[in-house]
Amino acid sequence: MQLSERPTPSLANILQQRRQRLAQRISFPAVLWSGRSAARNFPANVHPFRASSHFLYFAGLPIANAAIRLEAGRLELFMDEATAADRLWHGDSPSRDQVAAEIGADAAYPLSQLAAYLDGAATIPVQESATRQQQTDWLKRDLPPAKALQAIDQELAAAMVELRLIHDELAIAEMRRAAAVTVAAHQAGMRATLGAKTEAEIRAAMEAVLIAHNMTPAYSSIVTVHGEVLHNNAYHHAVQPNDLLLADLGAETESGWAADVTRTWPTAGQFSSTQRDLYDLVLAAHDACIQQASPGVEYRELHLTAAQALAAGLVDLGILRGQAEDLVEQDAHALFFPHGIGHLLGLDVHDMEDLGDLAGYAAGRVRSERFGLGYLRLDRRLQAGMVVTIEPGFYQVPALLNDPERRTRYQDCVNWERLAQFSDVRGIRIEDDVLITPTGREVLTHALPTAAAQIEALIQA
Amino acid sequence: MQLSERPTPSLANILQQRRQRLAQRISFPAVLWSGRSAARNFPANVHPFRASSHFLYFAGLPIANAAIRLEAGRLELFMDEATAADRLWHGDSPSRDQVAAEIGADAAYPLSQLAAYLDGAATIPVQESATRQQQTDWLKRDLPPAKALQAIDQELAAAMVELRLIHDELAIAEMRRAAAVTVAAHQAGMRATLGAKTEAEIRAAMEAVLIAHNMTPAYSSIVTVHGEVLHNNAYHHAVQPNDLLLADLGAETESGWAADVTRTWPTAGQFSSTQRDLYDLVLAAHDACIQQASPGVEYRELHLTAAQALAAGLVDLGILRGQAEDLVEQDAHALFFPHGIGHLLGLDVHDMEDLGDLAGYAAGRVRSERFGLGYLRLDRRLQAGMVVTIEPGFYQVPALLNDPERRTRYQDCVNWERLAQFSDVRGIRIEDDVLITPTGREVLTHALPTAAAQIEALIQA
Repeated sequence: MQLSERPTPSLANILQQRRQRLAQRISFPAVLWSGRSAARNFPANVHPFRASSHFLYFAGLPIANAAIRLEAGRLELFMDEATAADRLWHGDSPSRDQVAAEIGADAAYPLSQLAAYLDGAATIPVQESATRQQQTDWLKRDLPPAKALQAIDQELAAAMVELRLIHDELAIAEMRRAAAVTVAAHQAGMRATLGAKTEAEIRAAMEAVLIAHNMTPAYSSIVTVHGEVLHNNAYHHAVQPNDLLLADLGAETESGWAADVTRTWPTAGQFSSTQRDLYDLVLAAHDACIQQASPGVEYRELHLTAAQALAAGLVDLGILRGQAEDLVEQDAHALFFPHGIGHLLGLDVHDMEDLGDLAGYAAGRVRSERFGLGYLRLDRRLQAGMVVTIEPGFYQVPALLNDPERRTRYQDCVNWERLAQFSDVRGIRIEDDVLITPTGREVLTHALPTAAAQIEALIQA
Repeated sequence: MQLSERPTPSLANILQQRRQRLAQRISFPAVLWSGRSAARNFPANVHPFRASSHFLYFAGLPIANAAIRLEAGRLELFMDEATAADRLWHGDSPSRDQVAAEIGADAAYPLSQLAAYLDGAATIPVQESATRQQQTDWLKRDLPPAKALQAIDQELAAAMVELRLIHDELAIAEMRRAAAVTVAAHQAGMRATLGAKTEAEIRAAMEAVLIAHNMTPAYSSIVTVHGEVLHNNAYHHAVQPNDLLLADLGAETESGWAADVTRTWPTAGQFSSTQRDLYDLVLAAHDACIQQASPGVEYRELHLTAAQALAAGLVDLGILRGQAEDLVEQDAHALFFPHGIGHLLGLDVHDMEDLGDLAGYAAGRVRSERFGLGYLRLDRRLQAGMVVTIEPGFYQVPALLNDPERRTRYQDCVNWERLAQFSDVRGIRIEDDVLITPTGREVLTHALPTAAAQIEALIQA
C-alpha cells in the first residue's frame, strides 16, 4: 500500500505553524466546528462523514461532532468521549486526550463546555445543517451562508483564504498521496475498458482503487461516453467501440485533501483520426497552459492561452474560420470550450468555494459577463505554493450548438459541414493538478500519461 | 448485466395500486417531498442524492427536488423543468410530462405551484434539512421529527406502515435485484480475500460489484477482521492469515430498494477448528430461525429461538455452563449475541426506522428493558409479504466481556478458561433476507452459500 503511506511531516508541528500564521492575521478568537454525518434515509443511516474543510485545516483529523478554538496560536479542542454504547457498536476510539496530543492541542474539553468559550469568537458556518444550527444557537447570532459572511466572520474567512491559498509541506504531501491513488485509478479504468460493456463497469474499476486505499471520491465521478455533458453523473450508457470515454475522477485522502484528474480515451483502444486530431489539439492547449504556469502569471492568461490555442487549432482543422484572436474576442472558442481552464485545489476540489469567489477572485475582481469567461473560477496572479487544475476541453454540446441564437451569431465563424465530420467526438477533456513552485511548476499528476499513443498502450496492455 | 435488469411489473400500474390502498386508509390528502442532495464540503459538492423513501414508494423514481400529492387515488406531480444551465452542465433530462407519464401521474405542475395545493394535507418530514424547512414553511406548521408525528401526519405514517410492511410484486422484484447484486458482491469479496493485504482491498472488490451495476451501498459497509465491533466502518486493518473476516454489505437499487447480507469467512481460506465450531453454531441458529419463519409466527420468537440455539451450543462447546433455558432467562446468551435477530427490510435497510418503532413494533408493544431483548428492532407477528433479515451472531466484545459488573453477574455461567481457547474468533454473523410467503418463507439471498465448506471453496476458487 505504498501509494497511501502517511506523509512524514509531523501533524502537530504543521498545525502549530498554521495557527501561528492565523494569529498574525486576526486579533480575535476563531471557533471552527467539524460537523456531523448527515442523515440519508433515516437518522441512523447516514452519509459518510466529511469534516468541514476549515476545521480540517487546523485540526488535521476528521473528528466528527467536535470543535476547535484558535486564539493567539493556542489550540483548544472540544469533543465528547465515546459512551459505553459507542464502544459496543463502534469499537474503541481515541480518547479526547489522545486526540489532543496527536494534534498538539493546548487544552481539551467536553463539547458542552464550548458554550463558555465563544465570547467574541468568529466562525465559518459548516455545510451540515444540524451543526450550522448549533453554531447559530451557541454564538447567539444569525449566520449567513459562508459566501456572504459579515464582520469578524468575514475577516476570518479572508485570513483563511490567505493561508489556504499557499500550501505547506503537509498539504502538498497529502495532495501527492491523493494524486498517486488517482493516477492508479485512471490506469485501472483504462485497463478495464476493453472488457467493459457499460460506463458503470469502468467507474467501478476506478473507484475500487480509491476504496482499496481508504480514500473516497473527492467529488461525484464523471465516467461517461457523453463527455459533452459537463457534469454527467449517470453511468448507464453502453460502451460502443467507437466512443471516447471521458473520466473525471479524483481521490480525497482521509484528512480531506483532493486530487482532480480527467483523461479521455478511446473505448476501442485506438483513437480514430478525427478523435486523434481533436485530442492532440486539446493536449496542445493543456501543455501550453502548464508550460506557462509560473509565479507572477495571471491565471486568467492561462485561460486565454487555452482559448487561443483551441481556436487556432480549430481553424487549422477547418472547423472554425478566421483569425484565432478575433474568434476568441467573439467567444467563438466557447462554443466548444464553455468552461474555465480550472480552479484552486486543496481540501476542497474547488478549494474554498464555500466562500463564494473570495478565494478564486483577487480583491476587486468579479466574474466576467462574457460567455467565454464567466465560468472561470479563478482569477488571481499565481504564487508559489498554489495548486491549480489545468483542464482544457473540446465538446459538442447540443444545447449550445443547436441554439438558434448562437447559430446565427457564429454563422460565419463555424464550418458546420466540416464540424459534422468530427461527429465521433462528443467530449474531450485533459486535466492535471499543478503545484506552482518558486521557479515554475510541478505537475502532481505527471505519472499519468497524456500522450495519445501512451494512453492507447495502457488500454491495450 | 443480467443481474440488474429492470423488473417486469409496470411502474405506473403498481404505483396506482399503492395509492389506491393508501386512499382506503386516509381521508385527507398527503404531500410527500423527495428532498435534495445535501452539501458535502461546499454547496456544489454534494452527497449522492437519495430520495425520501416515502416519496419513492409512491413516485417510483428518484426525482430530486420534487413533490407528489396523493388524494383519493389521484397522483399529482410537482417538479421544475431543467433550465438551460442545467442542460449545459447536466445534460438532457426527462421533461415534467415525460416523468408524469412514466409514473402515471394524473396532473403535473411546477414545484412553485405546490403551495396552492397544501390545504389540509398530511406529510412526513424528509431527512434532508433544507427540504424539511421548506415543508415547515409551506405547510405553515412545525413538524416534529418523523418518529414523533402528530394528528394527520401520524395517521399518514400509520397508513404508510400498513402499506409498506407488506411488499407488492414490484417491491419484491426490486429486492431480488438488490439481492442478486449483493450475492455477487460477497462472492467477489471471497474471491479477493487470498490476494488481499487489508480490509479495504476486500471492501473495494465488493463495492465495485455494486458500482458496476449502478447500485450503491444501502448502508455503510462493514468489512472487517474485527467483527466484534458491531458497526465497524473503518477498513484499516491488515488481513492476517488466521483472521475471520466479517462482511455486512448490501446493495440498494436506483429506486431505493435494499438488500442486507452478512457473511463471515476465514482469511486463509479455511476455518480453524475453533472458528468452525462457532461458525457452525451460528449457522445452526440462522437455519433454525429461517425454518421457523412463517405467517403467524411472532418475530420475537425467532429471536428467542436463536438465543436458545446459541446458548445450547455454547453449553455443548463448554463455553457456557447450565441449562440453555436458564441461561437465556438470565440474558447470558447476550454476552455473546448482544443485538436483535434482525429487522424489517424494504426501501430502508431498517425499513421505516425514520418513524421510530412505529413499523417495527406492533401497536401496544414497546422495547424491552432486558439486555437480551432491548436491541430487538422488530416485534410483530409475521405476515406474508413481509421481508425481514435473519442475522444471528457470536462476538467477543471486550466492552461486554471485560465489564466488571457482567463478569461478576455471569461468573458461574461462563467458563472463561474454555472461552480463551476460542480467541481466534472475534466476531461471526450470518445474515440473509427472508420473504415471508403464504406457505412459509423464501430466502431472497439463497444463492450465496452459508455452509462452511462451500465458503471455503469460494475463497479458494
